[in-house]
Amino acid sequence: MLIGDMLRRDAKLYGKKIGLIDGEKRFSYSELHHRVNRLANGFVGLGLEKGSRVAVMANNCHEFVEAYFAVAKAGLVVVPVSTRLSTDEMSYIMGHSDASVLIYQEAFQKGIDGIRKDIPQVNYFLCIRKGRQGGRDDYESFLQKFSEDEPKTQDALNENDMVMIMYTSGATGKPKGVMTSHRNVMANTITLSFEHHIVPEDITLLVMPFYHNGGLWPTMVHFYRGGRVILLEGFDVETILNFVEKEKVTFLNLVPTTLVRLISHPDLGKYSLDSLRTIMYAGAPIALSKIREAMQKLGEHRFYTGLGSTEASGSMLSLPNREHALEGPMAEKLPSVGRDSINVEVRVVDAQGRDVNIGEVGEIIAKGDNIAMGYWKMPDETAETFREGWLHTGDMAKVDRDGYVYIVDRKKDMIISGGENISSKEVEDVIFRHPAVHEAAVIGVPDEEWGESVKAIVALKPGSKATEQEIIDFCKDFLSSFKKPKSVDFLDELPKNPAGKVHKAGLREIYWRGRERKI
Amino acid sequence: MLIGDMLRRDAKLYGKKIGLIDGEKRFSYSELHHRVNRLANGFVGLGLEKGSRVAVMANNCHEFVEAYFAVAKAGLVVVPVSTRLSTDEMSYIMGHSDASVLIYQEAFQKGIDGIRKDIPQVNYFLCIRKGRQGGRDDYESFLQKFSEDEPKTQDALNENDMVMIMYTSGATGKPKGVMTSHRNVMANTITLSFEHHIVPEDITLLVMPFYHNGGLWPTMVHFYRGGRVILLEGFDVETILNFVEKEKVTFLNLVPTTLVRLISHPDLGKYSLDSLRTIMYAGAPIALSKIREAMQKLGEHRFYTGLGSTEASGSMLSLPNREHALEGPMAEKLPSVGRDSINVEVRVVDAQGRDVNIGEVGEIIAKGDNIAMGYWKMPDETAETFREGWLHTGDMAKVDRDGYVYIVDRKKDMIISGGENISSKEVEDVIFRHPAVHEAAVIGVPDEEWGESVKAIVALKPGSKATEQEIIDFCKDFLSSFKKPKSVDFLDELPKNPAGKVHKAGLREIYWRGRERKI
Repeated sequence: MLIGDMLRRDAKLYGKKIGLIDGEKRFSYSELHHRVNRLANGFVGLGLEKGSRVAVMANNCHEFVEAYFAVAKAGLVVVPVSTRLSTDEMSYIMGHSDASVLIYQEAFQKGIDGIRKDIPQVNYFLCIRKGRQGGRDDYESFLQKFSEDEPKTQDALNENDMVMIMYTSGATGKPKGVMTSHRNVMANTITLSFEHHIVPEDITLLVMPFYHNGGLWPTMVHFYRGGRVILLEGFDVETILNFVEKEKVTFLNLVPTTLVRLISHPDLGKYSLDSLRTIMYAGAPIALSKIREAMQKLGEHRFYTGLGSTEASGSMLSLPNREHALEGPMAEKLPSVGRDSINVEVRVVDAQGRDVNIGEVGEIIAKGDNIAMGYWKMPDETAETFREGWLHTGDMAKVDRDGYVYIVDRKKDMIISGGENISSKEVEDVIFRHPAVHEAAVIGVPDEEWGESVKAIVALKPGSKATEQEIIDFCKDFLSSFKKPKSVDFLDELPKNPAGKVHKAGLREIYWRGRERKI
Repeated sequence: MLIGDMLRRDAKLYGKKIGLIDGEKRFSYSELHHRVNRLANGFVGLGLEKGSRVAVMANNCHEFVEAYFAVAKAGLVVVPVSTRLSTDEMSYIMGHSDASVLIYQEAFQKGIDGIRKDIPQVNYFLCIRKGRQGGRDDYESFLQKFSEDEPKTQDALNENDMVMIMYTSGATGKPKGVMTSHRNVMANTITLSFEHHIVPEDITLLVMPFYHNGGLWPTMVHFYRGGRVILLEGFDVETILNFVEKEKVTFLNLVPTTLVRLISHPDLGKYSLDSLRTIMYAGAPIALSKIREAMQKLGEHRFYTGLGSTEASGSMLSLPNREHALEGPMAEKLPSVGRDSINVEVRVVDAQGRDVNIGEVGEIIAKGDNIAMGYWKMPDETAETFREGWLHTGDMAKVDRDGYVYIVDRKKDMIISGGENISSKEVEDVIFRHPAVHEAAVIGVPDEEWGESVKAIVALKPGSKATEQEIIDFCKDFLSSFKKPKSVDFLDELPKNPAGKVHKAGLREIYWRGRERKI
């Protein structure tokens, strides 16, 4: 099954049903299917070669969803560009992926104009305008010019063809483009649609951005079963609560930060949340006390967590609703990220690739049809991470006697704050540029709201001076705002391991001591 | 995912749990996994080439299930042989599939001895003995000789490798061997496990034979999710009711014949059937009045039907529990076999391959990863039935405005009685051998218990005489007992179409007139 087959199926089986809601606009599956066909035929009309990249820079809107499916149908490759990145990072991604088309929301016009000279390979710009429409580069006008019939391109497509390059923060600094095939995406879609027992009556509110896997997969699993997707832009808890009540939302995927805010909302009890069957929380650490509080407030079997990654097109491990318990033997498993997701095989191995014994720490590796094809134009990183079909996640974990996996550390030097991956090294590289800095280490420290927050530990040069605020402000000039340190601690000298390298594990130990859920 | 991966996963995630029950024997997933490994290592020890055929002739027993998985793990191909066939048919299948190993239950020893000279290609015989064990050809002794470690054979296997040849009655008389790959079987397993929302807590009672797809797939879908399979030999309704109550069975797959007997059982109300979530009924026609009665007695949302076939490794169309209703708009859909199963695309097309309009009759065709590789050593039949990825089922149907499919006739001249396919032509060929017979046509006619029963319509030669019983007895000498006509009607001459061929559709019309569910 190709991604393009999904909406055709939906149009056939659930044609008149509202499949997608974006503000005041409600699209039936037939309408959505036809709009996607129009845009796909438009891409065909541009004469793009099979496999050409189409970048999309947009927050959640129906046009982004349409573009995703249209690119897939036309045999092209979609490159979602996070709208939270700096313009430098955006132009890097568009240049590195060699995108020849850019679809963007009008709100980013100024940013695009500023980097236009840096992305000479983009031949076609399509602007998603909310108000006045028209013009050669207007998304809606472009789409309306083409036929709503099924494009013929599907015939030349194979399930192993690439359909997406999704960039993630790399531990080495530069974003890495994860290449996924139709089969990869469909495999995860089947896995998570199955894991969550999605039925046509399900309704999800898309809180997370569609340019992120956490927004993409809930869309896919609901479309896969003829459910309904309601788009939301942003994480405002009151809006979420209003939508759940009004639209009878059954499924939410939230980063822990949003979940913690939701259960802490003073008016939580005033909303009717009966329709809500599952809240998936994942993508970042959560304090055990917070998930217990959430279960106490909303019901223990309403929650689901797991371990996923862009390289796995989604899920690897699952702790499903029925295994969420406040009392009894299953309560012990709550700090875990569960066991192998359906259709995925997971192992925790030592450096020699042998399964670790119970209680020992090893690296999580995963195999399945969902595991990505590799990193775009990064053969070395690909060879290191994807070995004989096994994704090496870099996440270090223990396994208990029942096979439940507990993450203890990340092998790769990454911080996850509010669901966003941040490379420690990228932040350290910036801090080192500050003239007063002698040594610097950046780690993630526990944060009740964000899961982790970015902390810099700095040793200044003898005789030099710098305040916490100066270091933070300095970082802001070179990094996306969410990557800057939230706090800076100063030491005379950073602790080192016997090889003379900064002993980060030791630093983390200080800040994480006594936490039940480390990551 | 290969079939062999399933039990390894089960052993890892549900090791101590009882996965399989056969009479007094209860096997945990770990035990089952290790027994399968032993047998697979035994096959490797025999030095069989990859893809060699292993025939199994057995009623439901744990050894059959083990053999199925061991053959798959060892990179071989399993050939299930129906125990209801005549010895002629059995030796045809073993010869045609060129099986080099035969695993059989002791009960069939005499039959095997009788055809041993006809199956010279079988080099290894393994006998499943229930009592005294031992000897060179003893299944259990053989298995116990080998290691319980994972065989290394998996590495050389590909999901597109053949894993099974399952023979079905062909309309042309000779059984056809449907070749399925690991991927075909896994695709249907995922589809039906998903369709039925199978969870690890599910328990199925295997009423249908494991050598038939109707017994194979429920086993697979429960093993796939770490559920439990209880083997039963035979269709005795009282035994079924006892097991459901005692073992808290949640899922049953029944042919309509058995379902009708079950709901007609005088003691039905005395059993506690609360655990039963789903009764799947399929594989043969059922009278609308009977399924309505079943829903009234047991609850309307407990039933599930659809359309499947061996060539589809299982399911193509599904009418799930939530679409089973006695009242309201969905009640109209009850005579249908539903809509496209998950992961399967179905169309109803005319002779030119175009989708028929609503209400028009066309042939059901289906596409998906579950569609078989073709027929073993029958390139012409393969080319005719499997075209560009589409299985041409030979089932003729109408589609309503919501996409629900209603079967109206079979293009291929087949009768389905009690879930068994019977070729009209095969029976006609035998009747023609009777010296008194001038013309003969064999059709399926409505039967409340069997769905259809075999009826012969015969015109005798002028001056010749033969009674109904004589014709039936004559057929018994040449055919498996279930294929013989249950009744014979005599006409002076059979009705013909303009081309001079017997007008079977006209004959069927006479017997089926006024039935709401034709097939």
